[in-house]
Amino acid sequence: MYRKSSVGSELDQLIQYLSKLPGFGPRSARRAVLQLVKKKDILMRPLANSLAEVAEHVSPCSLCGNLDTNDPCHICSSEKRDRKIICVVQDVSDLWALERSGSFQGLYHVIGGTLSALDGIGPDDLNIASLLQRASDDNVTEVIIATNATVDGQTTAHYITERLQKSNVKTTRLAHGVPVGGELDYLDDGTLTAALHSRRPF
Amino acid sequence: MYRKSSVGSELDQLIQYLSKLPGFGPRSARRAVLQLVKKKDILMRPLANSLAEVAEHVSPCSLCGNLDTNDPCHICSSEKRDRKIICVVQDVSDLWALERSGSFQGLYHVIGGTLSALDGIGPDDLNIASLLQRASDDNVTEVIIATNATVDGQTTAHYITERLQKSNVKTTRLAHGVPVGGELDYLDDGTLTAALHSRRPF
Repeated sequence: MYRKSSVGSELDQLIQYLSKLPGFGPRSARRAVLQLVKKKDILMRPLANSLAEVAEHVSPCSLCGNLDTNDPCHICSSEKRDRKIICVVQDVSDLWALERSGSFQGLYHVIGGTLSALDGIGPDDLNIASLLQRASDDNVTEVIIATNATVDGQTTAHYITERLQKSNVKTTRLAHGVPVGGELDYLDDGTLTAALHSRRPF
Repeated sequence: MYRKSSVGSELDQLIQYLSKLPGFGPRSARRAVLQLVKKKDILMRPLANSLAEVAEHVSPCSLCGNLDTNDPCHICSSEKRDRKIICVVQDVSDLWALERSGSFQGLYHVIGGTLSALDGIGPDDLNIASLLQRASDDNVTEVIIATNATVDGQTTAHYITERLQKSNVKTTRLAHGVPVGGELDYLDDGTLTAALHSRRPF
């Protein structure tokens, strides 16, 4: 559909890069480019600088895998965090989601995905060895496994739990149940069953 | 929803810029940032350079309003284009769409929007004066008005036609009708009426 000859090569190059972003295709990339050119000083140049800066300074934390300008990251190096609890997440986006909730004060460990026989992803492809290493530290008392509630996520959770059985840490997982603000009528059977099963006294 | 404290300030800044792109919100911007950090060398740095380069070199053509690294743009300065016909479009994206079709060999004029009483956009806010100037050139014989088939687009088309009446040029507009590959059953009444009205012999 998109022919190179129709716009200048530099614009064309930019459209091609933008269309590689998740959620962007050639059409939305073209719209974005027009918007960017109209807002050169307040959006385009700042975005270019910001991208270059993040590319230069941001990298994964060598302890937990979080993205930060410092290594160890601001969570791993914070003195306010509870070093006895490690929360295992699939991806940095999950870590961010938990941080936004503001309800967890321990440390994190990003394993970088899930086990998947179909995609050929085994334990060695994830940051599981480093998790076992960290969990074997005597200070750590609990590992919360917060992988997604998908089949792959739960498989991974079970695998990690098994590997952690030798160590002295308690392993826990997030509760299943009715989302806060959710309506029962719209919930799937599995969630309703889990919520009923884990009912708690008022 | 999005709290600054949850990620580093540089990442946060980048997420904020990205979420200003059309079609992007905070969530998709975060996904894009994670993708970008994972592909630093093949996507993030090239995108930063490409943005900086376009911001530096690309600007609207002083004749037609097309975006290009050169001024006049490659269309206005091409010797292969028919200088007798000017096609009036609302935006650069429309110019690109026509160029992709490869079916027009004349010159363009981007007026930069439509007249809109509601939004307070009058003739002076659009590049109409420069169009009248260009149309008054003796070489120009036809002005094709290719504004969108919306109410505002058609209002603008009528306004331009009126202003051009004094000059010697012929003004034409794009045909209404059944889209190629379209099914009659899904077409609106207005389009069907127009298509029937403008029927042509086989």
